[in-house]
Amino acid sequence: MLLLIPGPVTTRPEVRAALARDIAPWDNEFKAVYRRVLDRVLAIAGGIPGQHATLPLQGGGHFVIEAAIRTFVPPGRKILIPATGRYSDSMIRLARDAGRVPVVLTVAPGEPTDPAVVEAALDADLSISHVGQVYSETGTGVIHDAVAIGAAVHRAGRRMIVDAVSAFGALPMNMAEHPEIDAVVFSANKCIEALPGIAFAVCPIDRLKQCAGQAGSWSLDLADILTHDARPRFTPPAQIVAAFDKALDFFDAEGGREPRLARYTANAMTFYDGMVGLGLTPWLPRNRQGPIIVVIHAPADPAWNLQHFVDALKARGVLISNFFNTPTPSFRVGCIGAITPDDMRGAVAAVDAALTEIGITRREAACP
Amino acid sequence: MLLLIPGPVTTRPEVRAALARDIAPWDNEFKAVYRRVLDRVLAIAGGIPGQHATLPLQGGGHFVIEAAIRTFVPPGRKILIPATGRYSDSMIRLARDAGRVPVVLTVAPGEPTDPAVVEAALDADLSISHVGQVYSETGTGVIHDAVAIGAAVHRAGRRMIVDAVSAFGALPMNMAEHPEIDAVVFSANKCIEALPGIAFAVCPIDRLKQCAGQAGSWSLDLADILTHDARPRFTPPAQIVAAFDKALDFFDAEGGREPRLARYTANAMTFYDGMVGLGLTPWLPRNRQGPIIVVIHAPADPAWNLQHFVDALKARGVLISNFFNTPTPSFRVGCIGAITPDDMRGAVAAVDAALTEIGITRREAACP
Repeated sequence: MLLLIPGPVTTRPEVRAALARDIAPWDNEFKAVYRRVLDRVLAIAGGIPGQHATLPLQGGGHFVIEAAIRTFVPPGRKILIPATGRYSDSMIRLARDAGRVPVVLTVAPGEPTDPAVVEAALDADLSISHVGQVYSETGTGVIHDAVAIGAAVHRAGRRMIVDAVSAFGALPMNMAEHPEIDAVVFSANKCIEALPGIAFAVCPIDRLKQCAGQAGSWSLDLADILTHDARPRFTPPAQIVAAFDKALDFFDAEGGREPRLARYTANAMTFYDGMVGLGLTPWLPRNRQGPIIVVIHAPADPAWNLQHFVDALKARGVLISNFFNTPTPSFRVGCIGAITPDDMRGAVAAVDAALTEIGITRREAACP
Repeated sequence: MLLLIPGPVTTRPEVRAALARDIAPWDNEFKAVYRRVLDRVLAIAGGIPGQHATLPLQGGGHFVIEAAIRTFVPPGRKILIPATGRYSDSMIRLARDAGRVPVVLTVAPGEPTDPAVVEAALDADLSISHVGQVYSETGTGVIHDAVAIGAAVHRAGRRMIVDAVSAFGALPMNMAEHPEIDAVVFSANKCIEALPGIAFAVCPIDRLKQCAGQAGSWSLDLADILTHDARPRFTPPAQIVAAFDKALDFFDAEGGREPRLARYTANAMTFYDGMVGLGLTPWLPRNRQGPIIVVIHAPADPAWNLQHFVDALKARGVLISNFFNTPTPSFRVGCIGAITPDDMRGAVAAVDAALTEIGITRREAACP
């Protein structure tokens, strides 16, 4: 079964095999694995040892985003959040429920966040302390240029939290060049191609120390995790961490971030062009299509039914999400995980057959 | 390797094997597993379908304890916490950092919490809304009678949160008979004999609805989890959930809670008596020794070194914690997991050999 949901993503059998061992989290043997994982994440983030730290947090992306907001945005302060879609909506709610004040910046659906607009919004409200930016919007597949937006945040003299959940390990991130970033956060089960259950933040150590004590939650305080010096704070999901370490071996063997991005880009474009070839309408123009997720408009045919389509695809060994996060009906396909353009060609053929099976003849967009 | 740390505990190979599959968390197939797990937990808790709900939370025991406090104790209100040891200390910090007011009730080290003392403390301060009680104190092995304490809380007209992390599935809990309980919480990797990465709360549905909106955290709001009607809210650690479901099969096959408690009790007493036979001094008198953890005083011999002892034991296939949580030096041994009295007899022999290897001749307690 090809998982294109995404994620969790399709993983390698060797990564899953690394789960199947009893592990004592405070044993010296596992401590070495734990510390190695933190070091490897730091290197991928372009962090500087001694200046940046990797903070592991059990759970998924939502937890670590809330932890980053709590740790760095003082209670009652404002965080500007460009409305990229489903995942900025999550960040807005996480901030609001945590007693911070989200300021929503409108972004047109399908458009990338404009760094100049972010900068203007910051200039217009000096009481905003942070920008919370989704890097790769999983809801639409749009990539928001966190590097250029970071530069704008830097010029405005504010701080930034980057939701890199579906970006980290594929899209560029060099924290050494981004003094404005308080946290880059991600989860194990996207571009690193591991299993869900652990998330990470990479943060400047001096900022963690400055912000100690303001999280208002022990569980979700990244500054507290720093004080544990790369030892697990609470019982960690040790099997999930061991599998993550194994997944990083494959990341390294592939040559790191750039070859991985190249593979994902080839996956995405193979699928995108395949959909066009089948008469379907991608949700984004080709020049704005990101490498992580391809979203396709629901076909105009009245026989369209997303769950039926998902079931027909699943019967052909391809599993996609049975929901959509775009303003108009669509289906979304992940292009990340331990998969190749050949897999995507197989997925295109499966889409063709599944559409035929469920009786779709009018394949163009219902709502273009 | 026998994991007696505890926990994570020693698991069955079939449980670990259930981890090794890619899973789409929103797929209908996994949804059935997820819902089944929640129903099975509810039954073990003695919850009434339609009146109680199981709320899954990714992460470990600390996270779900914070979630229970946030969900049920209003901000700024008092929670009485009997000071059972290391894990009540955690609850105190979780409550305080979350903006609730912990009121600490002194309990003598090694003694069980006295229900009459809890009731008197509640009668003396009518502004206390909740009692937070550790059921099995992992730091010392003392069992605190949550059932009798619950009755006292009920008489005083207050509410209760039970930290059953190392108790659930072995010690008695019948929520149907405890209208005063707001939450019983536990994690997957103790008496259910599964892997770490997911925790659960069992709560009355009417109370969850009454308390909606006061958690001050989206991630840690049990009332919000209820609204998702047994569908995963965020990406769950799906492999960990699948293994938990498999572990419940073995729980059922064993005959459920009572036979499991009987096995753990036999494990604990076999180890306890074995230690006495070796000339070591258990930390608790035999009539107060609980079935979950046995704590042994550090030997008086000046050659005693916990890490050396742990290493010598590990070389013999037995892994125990390399730290202790008692006021005086000790070592602790978990008696839970997929292990039997035969395993404990092997552990006793390993302790004997390890002590000899590291040169311990004076085995009686250093600080009795």
